[in-house]
Amino acid sequence: MFRMNSVISFKMSPYKMNNYFKCSHVCLYSCHAVQESLLSSASGFSNYRGILNWCVVMLVLSNARLFLENIIKYGILVDPIQVVSLFLKDPYSWPAACLIIVSNVFILAALYTERRLAVGTISETTGLILHIFNLSCILVIPAATALTVTSMTSVGGVISLGIYTVLFLKLYSYKDANRWCREIRQAKANGYMYYFVFAPTLCYQLNFPRSSRIRKRFLMRRLLEMLFLMQLLVGLIQQWMVPTIQNSMKPFQEMDFSRMVERLLKLAVPNHLIWLIFFYWFFHSSLNFMAELLQFGDREFYRDWWNSETVTYFWANWNIPVHKWCLRHFYKPMLRKGTNKFLAQSAVFLVSAFFHEYLVSIPLRMFRLWAFMGMMAQVPLALFVSRFLNGNYGNAAVWISLIIGQPVAVLMYVHDYYVLHYGSSA
Amino acid sequence: MFRMNSVISFKMSPYKMNNYFKCSHVCLYSCHAVQESLLSSASGFSNYRGILNWCVVMLVLSNARLFLENIIKYGILVDPIQVVSLFLKDPYSWPAACLIIVSNVFILAALYTERRLAVGTISETTGLILHIFNLSCILVIPAATALTVTSMTSVGGVISLGIYTVLFLKLYSYKDANRWCREIRQAKANGYMYYFVFAPTLCYQLNFPRSSRIRKRFLMRRLLEMLFLMQLLVGLIQQWMVPTIQNSMKPFQEMDFSRMVERLLKLAVPNHLIWLIFFYWFFHSSLNFMAELLQFGDREFYRDWWNSETVTYFWANWNIPVHKWCLRHFYKPMLRKGTNKFLAQSAVFLVSAFFHEYLVSIPLRMFRLWAFMGMMAQVPLALFVSRFLNGNYGNAAVWISLIIGQPVAVLMYVHDYYVLHYGSSA
Repeated sequence: MFRMNSVISFKMSPYKMNNYFKCSHVCLYSCHAVQESLLSSASGFSNYRGILNWCVVMLVLSNARLFLENIIKYGILVDPIQVVSLFLKDPYSWPAACLIIVSNVFILAALYTERRLAVGTISETTGLILHIFNLSCILVIPAATALTVTSMTSVGGVISLGIYTVLFLKLYSYKDANRWCREIRQAKANGYMYYFVFAPTLCYQLNFPRSSRIRKRFLMRRLLEMLFLMQLLVGLIQQWMVPTIQNSMKPFQEMDFSRMVERLLKLAVPNHLIWLIFFYWFFHSSLNFMAELLQFGDREFYRDWWNSETVTYFWANWNIPVHKWCLRHFYKPMLRKGTNKFLAQSAVFLVSAFFHEYLVSIPLRMFRLWAFMGMMAQVPLALFVSRFLNGNYGNAAVWISLIIGQPVAVLMYVHDYYVLHYGSSA
Repeated sequence: MFRMNSVISFKMSPYKMNNYFKCSHVCLYSCHAVQESLLSSASGFSNYRGILNWCVVMLVLSNARLFLENIIKYGILVDPIQVVSLFLKDPYSWPAACLIIVSNVFILAALYTERRLAVGTISETTGLILHIFNLSCILVIPAATALTVTSMTSVGGVISLGIYTVLFLKLYSYKDANRWCREIRQAKANGYMYYFVFAPTLCYQLNFPRSSRIRKRFLMRRLLEMLFLMQLLVGLIQQWMVPTIQNSMKPFQEMDFSRMVERLLKLAVPNHLIWLIFFYWFFHSSLNFMAELLQFGDREFYRDWWNSETVTYFWANWNIPVHKWCLRHFYKPMLRKGTNKFLAQSAVFLVSAFFHEYLVSIPLRMFRLWAFMGMMAQVPLALFVSRFLNGNYGNAAVWISLIIGQPVAVLMYVHDYYVLHYGSSA
């Protein structure tokens, strides 16, 4: 037997050498070498950059199919006219719009109280009482209106209650910040009240950092995004969410468990996409549009929550205006009063849970506590994730809780609403 | 109006300074700073590492739903007994097994011819004629058997024709490599013939590089993978592919275009997963198992085709044994004869197309040229991708062609088979 491999071959006679090199470019004799397969751990290979593209292609193709299946099954359901009916039941009665106009009363009341406090014509205690009364009215009056005025639609209710909630947080911050100012020196309440009301922040300060000019191209792009994404959101809800939810009612009434899970997963995809689009529409396009228009300098409306490895990191980074408010006016004042961190954190979730429930139950005129429980469930979830999972596993857990958690709550409310309004059987 | 932000605040009196610092941890006054949103291009932020986890979670959840929907709709369709019927129509007639046993005749004929050539009892021309006759028989005899023996099933046909094709490539390489050896020196044809026949390579050389020992744990893991993935493949085909294909027949007969596309995309997912599992099962588990058993050192059965940015890179890297054979025994000999590169490359695709068609048409007893055209379409596709797309776009294009191209061919054959065997209407 004749041994010949690439090493030994160099010991050949000059004639053979010549021939070998003539043919060596076809790897004539030795076209094999000792080596491991790439997927064997021994190979040390780790370049799987193509896998991300694979994921994207698979997701796009899967969703293209779902989209096509949806169009074949239901036809075109998008109907911009129908949207109007969500806001108006009776074209001669605009309760939500009236409520929003009335909100000016509370803004001016807060401003007037602070002016009195600044010049010292009323005491701190009187001021505090007036503020508490004013803030209570901001929460109670729209809630009472939404519950009693039958011509108010659910969508109208959510929007006006949302605006009042934002106003509540802003005026609470206004009261606190002005008081802190007075504690260290006499300062007048400035006339910037309406700038603060429209500015994309919930935290009051005497002078906001400003951008140097209004970038017109930036403004136009944000405006176009706002208009386009608004249409897209409405279209996706009409075409994808509504039929999927309607198809989910039967399994949920029959308590058919495997079909319930199937429906839930089916709903999770459009629900999650709509939430992502809503996030971009509100936190990037709309708030940046407002900020650019008002030359408001601080554009940190969200941080990189998509990289969250813990539930706490997600809640602290996806909605910076609310997070900043909670930190400044709730969490840190509690810590200063000696509350321990975990309790203070739980209290923040409790307040958040209250407002979530407030914004859902009252417009639907249905008290079920699903939103409240959903928010409160974040506390044990956060503990679980931070204790048992980290890195990519933690990140995946946060994504799963987002993708699955929301449609569970949505289905709960829709199911209960359906049973309440259309009886218990399909 | 009183200006006060974090810079100016340091100009305060010591008393105010003290107060400011006392309260600064709650970001009392200035809790805003001029900054851009992360998603604005001006922010320069680019950490989207969480998105890969998002993709994985979305894919897992989407496919979990498809899996559940499938189980609800069809129940459990996996049936290991049914698999036997794919191999055997008549339990007393084993045509595929007989064909495989007969293949030894051709192996021994090639070995005998080379031995004669080595000792010089027959001329090079006689040897070439004998080899050509032997190789022709290897292609023609199983094809003729598969077409005439009615008790041979399609699966049996594919397996025996596949084995014969591998044998054809191996013995062609054996003939070439031995001739090249004789051209530079007299060498005996060694007795390693059966080692080469079972070794996981198509390219013959006198002495293969060997690994030092058989790693028993490695061998066991590959064996378990082989067995498990084999079951998984059969299960996925029975549970997912077959019902999806059956549901596709109606739209394809009615030429309902939008439903055809929907069915195609629906089929693409299981088809692609099955192909991926098949890739791992064959190229990693099975070939590594054989190699470990034979202490065959060269484990490069595939390279990182998942990162392919061109179609050519994919074809040159996903199946290294065939690629190596094509390069050594077809492409480079053509270049040496003066053929230009593009023509030689197209000729390789032509031969590949012939074998693809050979392995599909004959077992199905149906000549439709879909596989042939699918392979030949790779040439213009490769030109298109390399000219217009690169980087991640090229990679995505390769993935799309893989994910979509295969189910198109599968549906074409199944449709034609269905029409041929069960008439033109459903």
